[in-house]
Amino acid sequence: MLKIKEECGLFGIYGHPEAANLTYLGLHALQHRGQESAGIVTSDNTHLYTHREMGLVSDIFTEEVLSKLSGKNAIGHVRYSTTGSSHLKNSQPIVVTYSKGELAIAHNGNFTNARTLREELEQDGAIFQSTTDTEVIVHLIAKSKEDKLIKRITDALLRCKGAYSLLFLSPKFMVAARDPYGFRPLVLGRLGTAVVVASETCAFDLIEAEFIREVEPGEILVVNNKGIRSFKPFPEVKHAHCVFEYIYFARPDSFLFGKNVYQVRKEFGKQLALEQPADADIVIAVPDSGVPAAIGYSEESGLPFELGLLRSHYVGRTFIEPQQSIRNFGVKLKLNAIREVLSGKRVVIVDDSIVRGTTSRKIVKMIRAAGAKEVHMRISSPPMKFSCYYGVDTPIKEELIANSLNVEEINKYITSDTIGYLSLEGVMKAVENYKGLGENDSFCDACFTGNYPVEITDSKVKFRQLHLFDR
Amino acid sequence: MLKIKEECGLFGIYGHPEAANLTYLGLHALQHRGQESAGIVTSDNTHLYTHREMGLVSDIFTEEVLSKLSGKNAIGHVRYSTTGSSHLKNSQPIVVTYSKGELAIAHNGNFTNARTLREELEQDGAIFQSTTDTEVIVHLIAKSKEDKLIKRITDALLRCKGAYSLLFLSPKFMVAARDPYGFRPLVLGRLGTAVVVASETCAFDLIEAEFIREVEPGEILVVNNKGIRSFKPFPEVKHAHCVFEYIYFARPDSFLFGKNVYQVRKEFGKQLALEQPADADIVIAVPDSGVPAAIGYSEESGLPFELGLLRSHYVGRTFIEPQQSIRNFGVKLKLNAIREVLSGKRVVIVDDSIVRGTTSRKIVKMIRAAGAKEVHMRISSPPMKFSCYYGVDTPIKEELIANSLNVEEINKYITSDTIGYLSLEGVMKAVENYKGLGENDSFCDACFTGNYPVEITDSKVKFRQLHLFDR
Amino acid sequence: MLKIKEECGLFGIYGHPEAANLTYLGLHALQHRGQESAGIVTSDNTHLYTHREMGLVSDIFTEEVLSKLSGKNAIGHVRYSTTGSSHLKNSQPIVVTYSKGELAIAHNGNFTNARTLREELEQDGAIFQSTTDTEVIVHLIAKSKEDKLIKRITDALLRCKGAYSLLFLSPKFMVAARDPYGFRPLVLGRLGTAVVVASETCAFDLIEAEFIREVEPGEILVVNNKGIRSFKPFPEVKHAHCVFEYIYFARPDSFLFGKNVYQVRKEFGKQLALEQPADADIVIAVPDSGVPAAIGYSEESGLPFELGLLRSHYVGRTFIEPQQSIRNFGVKLKLNAIREVLSGKRVVIVDDSIVRGTTSRKIVKMIRAAGAKEVHMRISSPPMKFSCYYGVDTPIKEELIANSLNVEEINKYITSDTIGYLSLEGVMKAVENYKGLGENDSFCDACFTGNYPVEITDSKVKFRQLHLFDR
Amino acid sequence: MLKIKEECGLFGIYGHPEAANLTYLGLHALQHRGQESAGIVTSDNTHLYTHREMGLVSDIFTEEVLSKLSGKNAIGHVRYSTTGSSHLKNSQPIVVTYSKGELAIAHNGNFTNARTLREELEQDGAIFQSTTDTEVIVHLIAKSKEDKLIKRITDALLRCKGAYSLLFLSPKFMVAARDPYGFRPLVLGRLGTAVVVASETCAFDLIEAEFIREVEPGEILVVNNKGIRSFKPFPEVKHAHCVFEYIYFARPDSFLFGKNVYQVRKEFGKQLALEQPADADIVIAVPDSGVPAAIGYSEESGLPFELGLLRSHYVGRTFIEPQQSIRNFGVKLKLNAIREVLSGKRVVIVDDSIVRGTTSRKIVKMIRAAGAKEVHMRISSPPMKFSCYYGVDTPIKEELIANSLNVEEINKYITSDTIGYLSLEGVMKAVENYKGLGENDSFCDACFTGNYPVEITDSKVKFRQLHLFDR
Repeated sequence: MLKIKEECGLFGIYGHPEAANLTYLGLHALQHRGQESAGIVTSDNTHLYTHREMGLVSDIFTEEVLSKLSGKNAIGHVRYSTTGSSHLKNSQPIVVTYSKGELAIAHNGNFTNARTLREELEQDGAIFQSTTDTEVIVHLIAKSKEDKLIKRITDALLRCKGAYSLLFLSPKFMVAARDPYGFRPLVLGRLGTAVVVASETCAFDLIEAEFIREVEPGEILVVNNKGIRSFKPFPEVKHAHCVFEYIYFARPDSFLFGKNVYQVRKEFGKQLALEQPADADIVIAVPDSGVPAAIGYSEESGLPFELGLLRSHYVGRTFIEPQQSIRNFGVKLKLNAIREVLSGKRVVIVDDSIVRGTTSRKIVKMIRAAGAKEVHMRISSPPMKFSCYYGVDTPIKEELIANSLNVEEINKYITSDTIGYLSLEGVMKAVENYKGLGENDSFCDACFTGNYPVEITDSKVKFRQLHLFDR
Repeated sequence: MLKIKEECGLFGIYGHPEAANLTYLGLHALQHRGQESAGIVTSDNTHLYTHREMGLVSDIFTEEVLSKLSGKNAIGHVRYSTTGSSHLKNSQPIVVTYSKGELAIAHNGNFTNARTLREELEQDGAIFQSTTDTEVIVHLIAKSKEDKLIKRITDALLRCKGAYSLLFLSPKFMVAARDPYGFRPLVLGRLGTAVVVASETCAFDLIEAEFIREVEPGEILVVNNKGIRSFKPFPEVKHAHCVFEYIYFARPDSFLFGKNVYQVRKEFGKQLALEQPADADIVIAVPDSGVPAAIGYSEESGLPFELGLLRSHYVGRTFIEPQQSIRNFGVKLKLNAIREVLSGKRVVIVDDSIVRGTTSRKIVKMIRAAGAKEVHMRISSPPMKFSCYYGVDTPIKEELIANSLNVEEINKYITSDTIGYLSLEGVMKAVENYKGLGENDSFCDACFTGNYPVEITDSKVKFRQLHLFDR
Repeated sequence: MLKIKEECGLFGIYGHPEAANLTYLGLHALQHRGQESAGIVTSDNTHLYTHREMGLVSDIFTEEVLSKLSGKNAIGHVRYSTTGSSHLKNSQPIVVTYSKGELAIAHNGNFTNARTLREELEQDGAIFQSTTDTEVIVHLIAKSKEDKLIKRITDALLRCKGAYSLLFLSPKFMVAARDPYGFRPLVLGRLGTAVVVASETCAFDLIEAEFIREVEPGEILVVNNKGIRSFKPFPEVKHAHCVFEYIYFARPDSFLFGKNVYQVRKEFGKQLALEQPADADIVIAVPDSGVPAAIGYSEESGLPFELGLLRSHYVGRTFIEPQQSIRNFGVKLKLNAIREVLSGKRVVIVDDSIVRGTTSRKIVKMIRAAGAKEVHMRISSPPMKFSCYYGVDTPIKEELIANSLNVEEINKYITSDTIGYLSLEGVMKAVENYKGLGENDSFCDACFTGNYPVEITDSKVKFRQLHLFDR
Repeated sequence: MLKIKEECGLFGIYGHPEAANLTYLGLHALQHRGQESAGIVTSDNTHLYTHREMGLVSDIFTEEVLSKLSGKNAIGHVRYSTTGSSHLKNSQPIVVTYSKGELAIAHNGNFTNARTLREELEQDGAIFQSTTDTEVIVHLIAKSKEDKLIKRITDALLRCKGAYSLLFLSPKFMVAARDPYGFRPLVLGRLGTAVVVASETCAFDLIEAEFIREVEPGEILVVNNKGIRSFKPFPEVKHAHCVFEYIYFARPDSFLFGKNVYQVRKEFGKQLALEQPADADIVIAVPDSGVPAAIGYSEESGLPFELGLLRSHYVGRTFIEPQQSIRNFGVKLKLNAIREVLSGKRVVIVDDSIVRGTTSRKIVKMIRAAGAKEVHMRISSPPMKFSCYYGVDTPIKEELIANSLNVEEINKYITSDTIGYLSLEGVMKAVENYKGLGENDSFCDACFTGNYPVEITDSKVKFRQLHLFDR
């Protein structure tokens, strides 16, 4: 279930008379990647037109709003929700005016040397509007001594470290860029004669665009009315695709890093059944994210798949908690256990991951309260022990339950009868079980192993201090 | 999938210091019964306090709003969404001042002689605020010559025909009433010393109230600070529980008419597999409502259950359609087919019902476009041929596809390879396969058979004319 | 200055393609008669269309709102602002559906037997939506056994006592009615072929309609597409025009009861100078309402007229008072004294009336603090000793300073050097000094004399109890 | 009447526990200097807290908003309303984060080399958020190599040319600065131990602060918790106070450049009567701004002062014009002529200035339509022939009627019988007729004479191009 906040989702289109409307639909399909704010910037080859707001895509973009976003080119962005820095000024795309005119930028990922660069820039007189790391790149572009936009962007990106999928829109150009490691996804497609880019293929499906290929790690695509040009200014490195996109983030219907997400998750479930069998009566999922793995677990184990937990889809942003203590209140708003399904049963419950453990503990208690005789927790990924610095808003590692407790202690804490995690080998086996990955491809598993493929330049203290600027 | 609008959901609580907060949570759990508007009325034994608004429960009731709803007693209401009569003035609970003071009323169901009664009352000088049939009963109560509230309510109900579950709140009393046929559900529970009533048990689960029993068909419960009294002023009739509550309306986790809804639906799926087998590779569901039956179908048939359609949960009320034609646009916003699951497969697709057939047709096309070799539509209820006059907003029968086409013609229209409906006998077998129904119990199957248990006094023309007053 | 709240302003137009737009402008011109809420109802000969909201006319009626108010006929209403009963449900025009169809009503005035009638109606089963006395007449019309609308209205009005100017709109008719005493103003005009009615002629000036005559006391005008018919169903009585319309309420540019308001007020000032001369250096006004009388006082006395108090026109509805004590804070927000004008001077300050005396006291102190040597208060009306029951929201008489203190005591309380009120004879002399009043014409001076021309049927306690229903 | 938009109003307070509340009141008193947007920034010695919004002070600052503006120090700003650049991003105070921390700036005036500086800064990589010239100074401060805030500010101001009164707030300092010419007003006061600054003294009156002196032209005041220090880093120049502040902008109750505004205006009226007598019956004013001069004219000429035009104070921002032609519609919304006052009279109408002439023309026609026999226009300032580049949003000179027509042609255009302007000598005589101006004092009369005291570095084309960036 949703417990980690994805950074963002991107969509761009160049050369279509309904650019704003299609971007709105594209963002709608990517809404799972960010529910805090959304924005669209369009260009009519002369000017940029912007609308950004806090809230959901379908609430923000009315017919009236969309009708003002003129032009055939557009980029859009959805952003995740946290409390600290949840401000309109931090929403994207960022639009600025600098010496070369107007420029809009949308970013998914995280620069690992943003704080260091920001300090440098401020020393030199730069003034920042927001507390996002994205703004750093805007300043680097504005300060570049190169004349052409693509050169300035390359100039700037060469100074940025970390994870990024980026879209730029100037009055005449759309630019898509992906870091050399390919941490975050970015895909390229075509809709008639128009060029489209998006974080995930599910955005193409909705608008019936054709998927062509991924934007390659380290590739910069420049789109204008003469076509697409590809640049690869970075030295080649071994890729580091975020494996957590497979485990939790991406939509099950997306085609990602060469595979369909649902099928990868189901395969995780099968592997999990092989590695961590359970002597039980039924398999249930923590909906919605645990469902594919639970189906796989059921299929492999032969145990029947049942709906033991029902999810409410009407949960709003905030909820007023009654003063009287309701056991496991927060979880109850989202989930209800079906007593008639669970009562007297030995239950395997499949979830995709455990972050702090508090929700899992509540779920186990809820299942037991509904009459389950035994509760066997099965997790379709390895223990998450390390923070992510590449665009996933995980808590600091001290708050990750698997960082301080071993598996048996976690089992005790969440009060399950048994617990079983999928091994990293199991993850990789499922991932590699399909064709499609190139020879240079590889995954980032830093959250499980602590092996960070890109150095964290900003000391971790600095990293967190960025939030000091939020108010 | 959602295609028929349920009328409403009810929640009431008497004698609890957090009456407003708990009603808000209860309504949240009943949100699936109405997403158009919501309202809560509380009493502090002296006055009534009201808040009604268009929208979702979690958006309407902020901490500030709830803090103004004083008192230990409350009733609440959620209402469905249609375009015609979607006005604040039609939202509930209705609150009026009459000669005996203040009174609030919340209603789930439909009076079949409302128009006739309204004309009579208007001839006598009555003035109506809304176009809802609920207001008729308010006038009947105000006009009654009886002195006591309960007598006045009985007086009024004896003149009303049709389907109703009702909650009343005066400064000192809460009254719950259910028509003699028991069309719509209404359950009674307890939370500590407080009395609770709700449309479905899922509302009790969230607030951890204990389910006691159903409010019986024909029963009027009067709750005040001395306790509960039960009245049964109506002659006994054979019950007519709405079978469609099982098929589509009620939440799968509710316990209804003596059974758990999810299990009944899964049983429908099993029966369907026995009656309408298919030579296929996989079983998928139209999410979310078709999932339980699809699991049952899979279990009985041995065909694997897969996620072939993914549902988006971010669809707002209105959506701007792009001018360029996107095939099956409306359905695409809610559902996406997973090509990798469906491609080359013979697919059984399970849905709970077909109303007009347009959506089913789009879904079949979408599945085929994703590469399915064959599409076998299976419906976990009989063909719906007749309109409902007991509180379900079905279209007029001329718009019901099964009213004008036979099963084979439907198959052709929706372009499936085969189609199979569950028989009425199959429905009843699944329903009776469990214990719990009393001897007088029976179901209303008028939407399948046209056997209406209660006369439609208002001619049908009149019935529809009610909407003329909406503007 | 504004200290008494006028009840309401009315505007109606029949047979003009821009009915809604012109009503909006008419209400704008009448905004001084009520700033709490505004509403417009239009008819297209088939249906009524309504928009009512809390706030100012220019904020409520946007182009979009006006575009939905279809039809060639319209009535509109502005309502005053108080805290107690300031609810949307009490805003007007009231629109109801009864046995004869739709009807809208807008009311300026007050029925003196409203509570008595309401109790009667409620005993008979009537249900009220609002706490306004206006709703009583709706019920009387709905209950009338007459068949034609005009007969029903007459039937109803014959049972109502007190002060009223009324506009009705049905899909086909507009009706204007004024009580036999003619308490509140109502004027008739023409705009091309369209018929217009309004509370004051200033509404005609803005839309360039031609003033024809007053709607006569006791007259009912029925307007439809065949023209205007006049009915006089009431026995003739001696008129009782509200003299306070001249003193304070009406706009100075209106032509009322046969005279221009500004000129009457200036004449009050001249009479005041004759009756209450002062040995002083300058004359200043309490802006804006005291200005005409101050100009008259200056002209008659020969003392120069100066701007000694400046009024701010940006004062909003509520204002946050700082914790630190600012002397005479409330008055300071509206008025500032100009030290350079007042310093060392003997000042005559002219105001139109004194209600509670608290504001006058603050103004005197403010003038003295600005350096005035002497302050001579002059009031252009007699001491207000009695409450109004005919549509002016004066406080209960116990709160009127002139009810408990004599003139010398008032002088002492408000700390002026001398005080002088205009005599009732002076008022009448100014009023009669102009031609235009018919032989039956006369004024209501109940607030000065206690001579109430119409009996107060509702005991005063009852009268006030109406507010109990507000919440 | 209002026809020229003043740039802005400023208020600041240092060292008062109710800093935000008092700033809100101060801005309320300065509301006439800008109705488009308002903002307050406070400091609690550690952080800055900001709230800016479009709209009026009394609508923007609710109790809740003010309660979040913590700290004992505050600066506030009101901004004028135009269509082009009316955006929240252009509202003030501007708040930025730069290498030295947080800084807020509020500006009244106009830099005449802003465009030139902006281009320079952008060439060097600077990124601008807004299209206001104020942002230029922020960048200059951020780029300064000086270490102390006051040095950085001085550094920056030495590069800026033109008219400015400025307030700065850092967590620990408040700084007030006025350009060497003293174009725009800025006054210094004291409230207990707190230091206050404001554009006009009327802001002090409301909060009962004591006026001490003007901030001197070329003076920079630095306020912190040790007291006030004064810096004068600029070479002394002959002052150039904006004479139009006396003629139109400032509130009549303010004490400005050594005199009370109302009295100066009345003196203008007296001079006007001497220079431009008229053979007439009455004197009326274009309310509200023409009233003081009309009173002076009446006093000097002996002609009686009357209310011939009544002003509505309920005019909102936008107004829906009916399709049917109403003569002089725009003026009619604000003004109504009183027929009974004007009919048959020879009328002197006094206004403060004529900009384009269109409004004056409508007013003359309106007076004539009300029956005036003759209309004699008298203007209490000289013909306005040149645009202002020092903070007043006058139209380009081609749109100024006195730039292209001579006085007799203007008379003909506005259809008056005679027209008379006050001479520049008359203006200066009235201004000098009072004591209080220092020996270096002088006025800017560029709008009448074209003698611009400070060079316009940005070519005029450039100057206007600033608006190109607005969208």
